Amino acid sequence: MTAMTQDCDALIAGMATAARRAARTLAAMTSIEKSAALDAAARAIRSDEAAILAANDEDMTRGKAAGLSSAMLDRLRLDPARVAAMADGVAAVAELRDPIGRVIDETLRPNGLKLQRVRVPLGVIAIVYESRPNVTADAGALCFKSGNAAILRGGSEARASNRAIHQAMQRGLALAGAPLDAIQLVPVADRAAVGAMLAAAGLIDMVVPRGGKSLVARVQAEARVPVLAHLDGINHVYVDRAADPGKAIDIAVNAKMRRTGICGAMETLLIDRGYAGGAALVGALLDAGCTVRGDAAAIALDPRVTVAEDADWDTEYLDAIASAAIVDGVAGAIAHIDAHGSHHTDAIVTEDKAAAERFLAEVDSAIVMHNASTQFADGGEFGLGAEIGISTGRLHARGPVALEGLTTYKWLVRGDGQTRP
Amino acid sequence: MTAMTQDCDALIAGMATAARRAARTLAAMTSIEKSAALDAAARAIRSDEAAILAANDEDMTRGKAAGLSSAMLDRLRLDPARVAAMADGVAAVAELRDPIGRVIDETLRPNGLKLQRVRVPLGVIAIVYESRPNVTADAGALCFKSGNAAILRGGSEARASNRAIHQAMQRGLALAGAPLDAIQLVPVADRAAVGAMLAAAGLIDMVVPRGGKSLVARVQAEARVPVLAHLDGINHVYVDRAADPGKAIDIAVNAKMRRTGICGAMETLLIDRGYAGGAALVGALLDAGCTVRGDAAAIALDPRVTVAEDADWDTEYLDAIASAAIVDGVAGAIAHIDAHGSHHTDAIVTEDKAAAERFLAEVDSAIVMHNASTQFADGGEFGLGAEIGISTGRLHARGPVALEGLTTYKWLVRGDGQTRP
Repeated sequence: MTAMTQDCDALIAGMATAARRAARTLAAMTSIEKSAALDAAARAIRSDEAAILAANDEDMTRGKAAGLSSAMLDRLRLDPARVAAMADGVAAVAELRDPIGRVIDETLRPNGLKLQRVRVPLGVIAIVYESRPNVTADAGALCFKSGNAAILRGGSEARASNRAIHQAMQRGLALAGAPLDAIQLVPVADRAAVGAMLAAAGLIDMVVPRGGKSLVARVQAEARVPVLAHLDGINHVYVDRAADPGKAIDIAVNAKMRRTGICGAMETLLIDRGYAGGAALVGALLDAGCTVRGDAAAIALDPRVTVAEDADWDTEYLDAIASAAIVDGVAGAIAHIDAHGSHHTDAIVTEDKAAAERFLAEVDSAIVMHNASTQFADGGEFGLGAEIGISTGRLHARGPVALEGLTTYKWLVRGDGQTRP
Repeated sequence: MTAMTQDCDALIAGMATAARRAARTLAAMTSIEKSAALDAAARAIRSDEAAILAANDEDMTRGKAAGLSSAMLDRLRLDPARVAAMADGVAAVAELRDPIGRVIDETLRPNGLKLQRVRVPLGVIAIVYESRPNVTADAGALCFKSGNAAILRGGSEARASNRAIHQAMQRGLALAGAPLDAIQLVPVADRAAVGAMLAAAGLIDMVVPRGGKSLVARVQAEARVPVLAHLDGINHVYVDRAADPGKAIDIAVNAKMRRTGICGAMETLLIDRGYAGGAALVGALLDAGCTVRGDAAAIALDPRVTVAEDADWDTEYLDAIASAAIVDGVAGAIAHIDAHGSHHTDAIVTEDKAAAERFLAEVDSAIVMHNASTQFADGGEFGLGAEIGISTGRLHARGPVALEGLTTYKWLVRGDGQTRP
């Protein structure tokens, strides 16, 4: 163990202890008090616009010198509109319905004991993210509103921006009398800090990685703390023999091409061998500017389709590329998804209600859709108001995760002197 | 990696693949079909009584020769009454309300999308347990009823008994036409099999250790698969200044002495400095046969109280021993529990409703009780019908876990051709 690792362990342990203390204060705050503190943080972000943009300039200059890709620089870049959107996001989280204190269920036992399950915060949540500085505000606000203390560890390329945003939020919390340790930013860029966070079982209750595949994979491989994340979104649209051809084209093109880089994008188009409109469907996708890699039967539909390798069926392109396979009905589609999917979001297009219900029942994914674009896989679109991420894990929370996924519950038992016989 | 480890990895991977297939069949079975299969398994256990007892004789003979403690031999031992209770337990699980398919919530979005969250099985659950052979039947039945395939790995000391019970249940499942791979028993006694189960992320969805502290600690330390467990039950009864003295004595004595070896037993008695009945309370516990180790103020209450070492406050005795400390009111009790508790079950005894509500709100444990014995911490007592265990983890399920804790949910989205703008 290097000295740096030991330093980071001590740093994270200290931050987590302070966070735990802050979480207790936060757990006792009313929903109105928490909202007021977030509103103050939103106002502070707005009034610190100049300082935040100056810090961001510093990060951008350093990033360009370091040769960051234009995609990374775009994620890093802030402008007045993005700062305003970030503040609006914090204010919107302030308005969300508070899950804390909600009674999940209650029972009166024959012996007179009254049982309730009541939602409480998880405790201390670590967020590990990359270049987008807005995560500092988003994730901090979601944790705060759900009564959790957040330990934020942003990418080193965004460190000045993150620090400026965090300082603004801290000023807001201070003005509202909220505990400052409820939203902490790890002050060192060392990767050992992430290792210390992932190892901090008992100190940190959950870690949420927000970023590219290599970050998520590292977190999932190393963490001794529960992880809320998805690694891949290998999503399928299955066009059934009974699909409406217009809906099939609209949904497949939207699912792939609306935004190709998001986790809800379609990666594989499955076409029922019995579907008559296959050529028009594949043609529409190609005409929209999508490269299509297919099996022999898909190539037969359109000569522009290129040969898919075995690896294509397991690839998340996040680009204007899709794989296409011909399958034998719903059963064939389910078997393909079972073999190659990532349990994120899969959709069927059909007018056959029985086929749709079978697909909904048997596809084992966080989100299963009928006659809708996979691009709807999003907490905002689901009416959750915001999301901390989408989970493809099976435990705790699945699919888009917002405030409720950041809570747990406890059992309250009220008696009158009962002892167990 | 030894050859045995590789063999075990292959064995567990093969079992898990078969389990996954069986889980899909199981997920499509109706509640009535699952109940019928469990009833058939219960009948098969009853009719195999002689074979099960003969197998158990074999284990007992081997156990005695190996010098197992009398406590271990008692846990291992079956008799006609215990076999009947095991069959009754399986039949009782068959009658529990099936959580699968239950709609948790539903929303209609402004764009016409209909969203539902629906309960589905977790998938493949591994149970790692020690000498009690009844876990084979209990855990297998709970997993089955909740639509999960179970991979059971019992203690090697109970291997003949477990095999006989498992064979009976398999015959029941076969008679009912249910998939046999839904309840599998690991056929080797090698410890490497447990290692392979704990490493099988992606193949096994959750592992539940049922047994002593060293088993649970090993599972929690090694697992790459989510674990549902509690390590310690360091439970507190806090007697407030406003406690009814009769209730305080009844609850403290019951919480410690009814059964000293269960996880819900009290380990530490906290007495408010302002409580007048301290001497009678400690005296009653001593008179009931409990050794009491206390701080100076507790020793002053009764000369039979011996000196508590620092380690006593963090010790789960699971025996007729308790520690006792004098604290300053509710705040002092909460601070002590915060420093030394294991987030399992803690109780307050008081007639002061405000003090009770503060304790219920601020003690961060899976179960928090007012005027009731901690020995009620049990799925059966909570009306859950049975329990797979008690979780002190914060994610997924907390406190007594029965069928609902063995499920997850998925999002179903029903549209009419919607694409995302």
